[in-house]
Amino acid sequence: MIRVGIVGGTGYTGVELLRLLATHDGVEVVAVTSRNAAGRRVDAEFPNLRGVCDLEFVAPDAAGLERCDAVFFATPNGTAMHQVPALLDAGVRVVDVSADFRLRDAALWARWYGQEHACPERLAEAVYGLPEVNRAALRGARLVGNPGCYPTAIQLGFLPLVEAGAVDTGRLVASAVSGASGAGRKERVDLILAEQADNTRAYAAGGHRHLPEIRQGLEAAAGGPVDLAFVPHLVPQVRGIHATLFAELTRDIDVQAAFEARYRDEPFVDVMPPGSHPQTRSVRGANICRIAVHRPDPQGRRVVVLAVIDNLVKGAAGQAVQNLNVLCGMEETRGLNAVALLP
Amino acid sequence: MIRVGIVGGTGYTGVELLRLLATHDGVEVVAVTSRNAAGRRVDAEFPNLRGVCDLEFVAPDAAGLERCDAVFFATPNGTAMHQVPALLDAGVRVVDVSADFRLRDAALWARWYGQEHACPERLAEAVYGLPEVNRAALRGARLVGNPGCYPTAIQLGFLPLVEAGAVDTGRLVASAVSGASGAGRKERVDLILAEQADNTRAYAAGGHRHLPEIRQGLEAAAGGPVDLAFVPHLVPQVRGIHATLFAELTRDIDVQAAFEARYRDEPFVDVMPPGSHPQTRSVRGANICRIAVHRPDPQGRRVVVLAVIDNLVKGAAGQAVQNLNVLCGMEETRGLNAVALLP
Amino acid sequence: MIRVGIVGGTGYTGVELLRLLATHDGVEVVAVTSRNAAGRRVDAEFPNLRGVCDLEFVAPDAAGLERCDAVFFATPNGTAMHQVPALLDAGVRVVDVSADFRLRDAALWARWYGQEHACPERLAEAVYGLPEVNRAALRGARLVGNPGCYPTAIQLGFLPLVEAGAVDTGRLVASAVSGASGAGRKERVDLILAEQADNTRAYAAGGHRHLPEIRQGLEAAAGGPVDLAFVPHLVPQVRGIHATLFAELTRDIDVQAAFEARYRDEPFVDVMPPGSHPQTRSVRGANICRIAVHRPDPQGRRVVVLAVIDNLVKGAAGQAVQNLNVLCGMEETRGLNAVALLP
Amino acid sequence: MIRVGIVGGTGYTGVELLRLLATHDGVEVVAVTSRNAAGRRVDAEFPNLRGVCDLEFVAPDAAGLERCDAVFFATPNGTAMHQVPALLDAGVRVVDVSADFRLRDAALWARWYGQEHACPERLAEAVYGLPEVNRAALRGARLVGNPGCYPTAIQLGFLPLVEAGAVDTGRLVASAVSGASGAGRKERVDLILAEQADNTRAYAAGGHRHLPEIRQGLEAAAGGPVDLAFVPHLVPQVRGIHATLFAELTRDIDVQAAFEARYRDEPFVDVMPPGSHPQTRSVRGANICRIAVHRPDPQGRRVVVLAVIDNLVKGAAGQAVQNLNVLCGMEETRGLNAVALLP
Repeated sequence: MIRVGIVGGTGYTGVELLRLLATHDGVEVVAVTSRNAAGRRVDAEFPNLRGVCDLEFVAPDAAGLERCDAVFFATPNGTAMHQVPALLDAGVRVVDVSADFRLRDAALWARWYGQEHACPERLAEAVYGLPEVNRAALRGARLVGNPGCYPTAIQLGFLPLVEAGAVDTGRLVASAVSGASGAGRKERVDLILAEQADNTRAYAAGGHRHLPEIRQGLEAAAGGPVDLAFVPHLVPQVRGIHATLFAELTRDIDVQAAFEARYRDEPFVDVMPPGSHPQTRSVRGANICRIAVHRPDPQGRRVVVLAVIDNLVKGAAGQAVQNLNVLCGMEETRGLNAVALLP
Repeated sequence: MIRVGIVGGTGYTGVELLRLLATHDGVEVVAVTSRNAAGRRVDAEFPNLRGVCDLEFVAPDAAGLERCDAVFFATPNGTAMHQVPALLDAGVRVVDVSADFRLRDAALWARWYGQEHACPERLAEAVYGLPEVNRAALRGARLVGNPGCYPTAIQLGFLPLVEAGAVDTGRLVASAVSGASGAGRKERVDLILAEQADNTRAYAAGGHRHLPEIRQGLEAAAGGPVDLAFVPHLVPQVRGIHATLFAELTRDIDVQAAFEARYRDEPFVDVMPPGSHPQTRSVRGANICRIAVHRPDPQGRRVVVLAVIDNLVKGAAGQAVQNLNVLCGMEETRGLNAVALLP
Repeated sequence: MIRVGIVGGTGYTGVELLRLLATHDGVEVVAVTSRNAAGRRVDAEFPNLRGVCDLEFVAPDAAGLERCDAVFFATPNGTAMHQVPALLDAGVRVVDVSADFRLRDAALWARWYGQEHACPERLAEAVYGLPEVNRAALRGARLVGNPGCYPTAIQLGFLPLVEAGAVDTGRLVASAVSGASGAGRKERVDLILAEQADNTRAYAAGGHRHLPEIRQGLEAAAGGPVDLAFVPHLVPQVRGIHATLFAELTRDIDVQAAFEARYRDEPFVDVMPPGSHPQTRSVRGANICRIAVHRPDPQGRRVVVLAVIDNLVKGAAGQAVQNLNVLCGMEETRGLNAVALLP
Repeated sequence: MIRVGIVGGTGYTGVELLRLLATHDGVEVVAVTSRNAAGRRVDAEFPNLRGVCDLEFVAPDAAGLERCDAVFFATPNGTAMHQVPALLDAGVRVVDVSADFRLRDAALWARWYGQEHACPERLAEAVYGLPEVNRAALRGARLVGNPGCYPTAIQLGFLPLVEAGAVDTGRLVASAVSGASGAGRKERVDLILAEQADNTRAYAAGGHRHLPEIRQGLEAAAGGPVDLAFVPHLVPQVRGIHATLFAELTRDIDVQAAFEARYRDEPFVDVMPPGSHPQTRSVRGANICRIAVHRPDPQGRRVVVLAVIDNLVKGAAGQAVQNLNVLCGMEETRGLNAVALLP
């Protein structure tokens, strides 16, 4: 039984980790930290956990995290990097679901996140936790930078084309929408239901923090520079990311076959039949990315990829559990077999 | 391994049964019937089941239902009653999730459902599938009338008061709201999102079919006549029933203690702490009823009960699985331990 | 042209007043105040007003409110009572859309609002702004306490029965739901879309501040004490209140005729045909209350009233404009003829 | 007073025309037709019109449309083309809100709409009703093909760039989302709230009927061929289109200034300040298109345009009224000054 701790348990990644781990028979959650909620029962904050989770939130210092086998960071960006080195030194494995260990370039990180990185020397050790790309490196790794939600959907959608060298990597376009849980559990007026229901809006059209992360992954796959336009949007739903990806083929390939081949053995990527339009609800609560590929003009150079994930599962907590499974040598799918909630 | 069939698999009860049974290790679904969708893959209709369910819909006659150990009816009202007798005679256990076997009085059924009952002689054998009331009778039963969604929430909410003889049973009031999945997966203009989003409306304020079912249950508990006003409403959400119940105490009791005592050993009823307001999302996808009790004026006679369920789980498919477990002597909670999806 | 000021312009009542008054040809808005947003353009906060409203928010002290003909208070409870006396003394008419001048009893107000009333001597002068009850008193009044949203729907729904002395006023029950805009434009985690979408919950089941206000109005109509159980709920929609009211007839009357007679000449109350179920979307954005009456058992004593309003219009800003029209001797319907937005 | 008829009054364009025309003081609606609802009161179908519209639906043949000054077609595609010639011959002006008169090329129309065009000889006379492009031609026109919803937002978003010859017209990308009212008021299972709430999905990714319409407009503006990738999506809201447009500049221009100059005198196009993200709710119920322009890399060639409209107003009924105003020599903004409903 792996003993895990969760740092920052009052956000959506935290409660989703608790939900998933409640039915994971190889893991025991021994501590959930929160500065503000310390002393409060976890199920008072999250009533879905009544009868399932008997823990109280504890202050980070009192949590005994260094005695865990593994720790998830479900904290705001810029927190994990201060605490991770000591835990690693204590022999604890870390899966950071925040952005602190996703970028390899500390200067790039500092530019996008508005602060210096606290432990740039650890970035080289961190493995980017997209198992579909880095599974081998993840086995036995000690520190994982768990991918962002948009980066998961967009990279999985572009990878088969980019790895095949079949598209113009200077002309990629990604338009993606997210449910409001992607913005976190925050006291923000612009997120209240009366502002955001019956409403769609783009945000960060001038540049979103997930852009360098996506570019880093696609450039590794391409073996060269990638130029990507990326616009995220908020839509009035709770969960779900829908990424609509546009590329131009540089040679004629069977795109459907390329996707099917690329993901044939992947337990958490589902390439749908030709002509499909994946729905975000088809992955609600499940650790899976569903993808469909279209060529509007079969003779043309345009290819359109549609990719959906649940931002809190394959885009955050589920992928973190998947990474933990790989890290610790458990079956990769363990605890992750729940079926999406539809309707 | 119990081999089960599902009759009428293209509705929400059908897909929910498939979702729940996919992770139930004591049950194998061997047939899913549908007249209209026969020959079509189940996961083409319900993409959340891709990778989980390999079945095709079959025509009811070709399904070999008589060779199943148990059959769920997830059909419109008035269908099961024509097929159930033959299955019972073939030794198949039946859990009817439609309304055909809920009322004991065939004449009452005919009046509310607008047709004669096809097998009134079987009604006496049918056990009303509310395990919190009828657990003993359910063990070994052959035919279960699975309760309606509103009746489940409203009966569980009133029962501790009525059984204790502590309220005026001539003055019960139930105002309840339901998510739109409760209206079924139907081609109805009034159910489309553009009509029903950002909208609340009552319906059947003059009399809803669930009223005689609720009354039958409460009268059995009261040992006498019950007068109940019941108004259901549709609210713009997918899942969830919230029942708000009003009663007048006839003697002063500790209502919180009464509820806690009544449901202490029930795995699927959660009496929340005093002052609580249960949220429908706290039971989304989970087989549980959460209840809170209030006395607005501690010296007054008024008592208010708030009860929430997921209409598709504890209000339909989940309760049906719970009943199957009891019927077949399996652990009652088997396959039903998923945590509610929050957010 | 009536020159009006709006105090507290950054909330939903404020923006709704600006929307309604933008097409009211008898009123000019000359000042909108906000402590926090002073100096900011109004249409930067509310983009629907781009091209329509050229004002900036000003600090309250700099607004010159004493030179307005009339001032709306769209402030949190407990603010208007400090500023209203000086404005009245300056000859300004005041419509307070907050709760400060709704209750006639200062002690009762203090108990429910958790603070002493700052100008109890003005309460006697304040006219409760439900024109369907107090139209005569409103003509020429100087200070109006604009009704709360629930109280508007619930009083309009009960009044014909209570005024006729036809129901047991000791046994009234009101279960009502509200869209999230009723909770205001606030930085509250429990109001964000990811918490409140696909979710229904009751709140304040132990006692809501609108209860004494409703009781005051109904007791005036009844000429005696009224006992009312009232439970409010939040449902996942932006606008709309749906009140479901239960009463017991003490004598047999034609309830449909009673409602039609009571509201025959009311421009903003619509009694629907027998058997109707009013929908909140049918009043979205419009200053109207639609009502339907049901007797589930035509021989029984139960009567059910369904009443819907837009909480921001007939439940707040629209009714405030209606009151201003009456106060200032304008046509009561002026500026209020927009049709509800459906779908 | 212009006397108008509405053909096909039971859909969303029909009810929206009725809503808008109810407060248009230059127009009187004298007939609303419906085959299925003939004899039924219009306000029984659309309760928001109670007290505002006293008409009954009439059968098309009995409507006396030839005696109207103007007729709106709010019919499914393929209906208007059969009835328009006779009305034109009778001297009636026609605004067709369906797709029958949008494309100039009958063969192209037949290919995308799956049937032969019934009056190809009238296509040359039809004016494409985008006043921002064709105002002069609309003055005094007899037949208007009212633009589609996506085409309105996408053309208005691309036009300043394309007209300026500043972008690569072979590389345009449009990703757009629509509220569910854009799919019409139809008995379709896939549109019911339980299927479409909390859900985003693309559709027609292989080619949507609005593509040739958009291309026709942009090619006229470009004076040459245009290649556009266009993917529409359904999001869980009632109203609103959000178009996210990607282009590559072929020369360095001040895009903000170009947009402001292009639309300076347009009453119904709002170019927002640099850095803005228009929200669909900011145009809810209003006849306006709000646009923002971004260059993610100020030195790069990428330009991103965000454009929002209410699909039922500027994308359908509102633009139809705007066209009628122009056609009949009324003030273009008459009856269209309502402020968007926010929240």
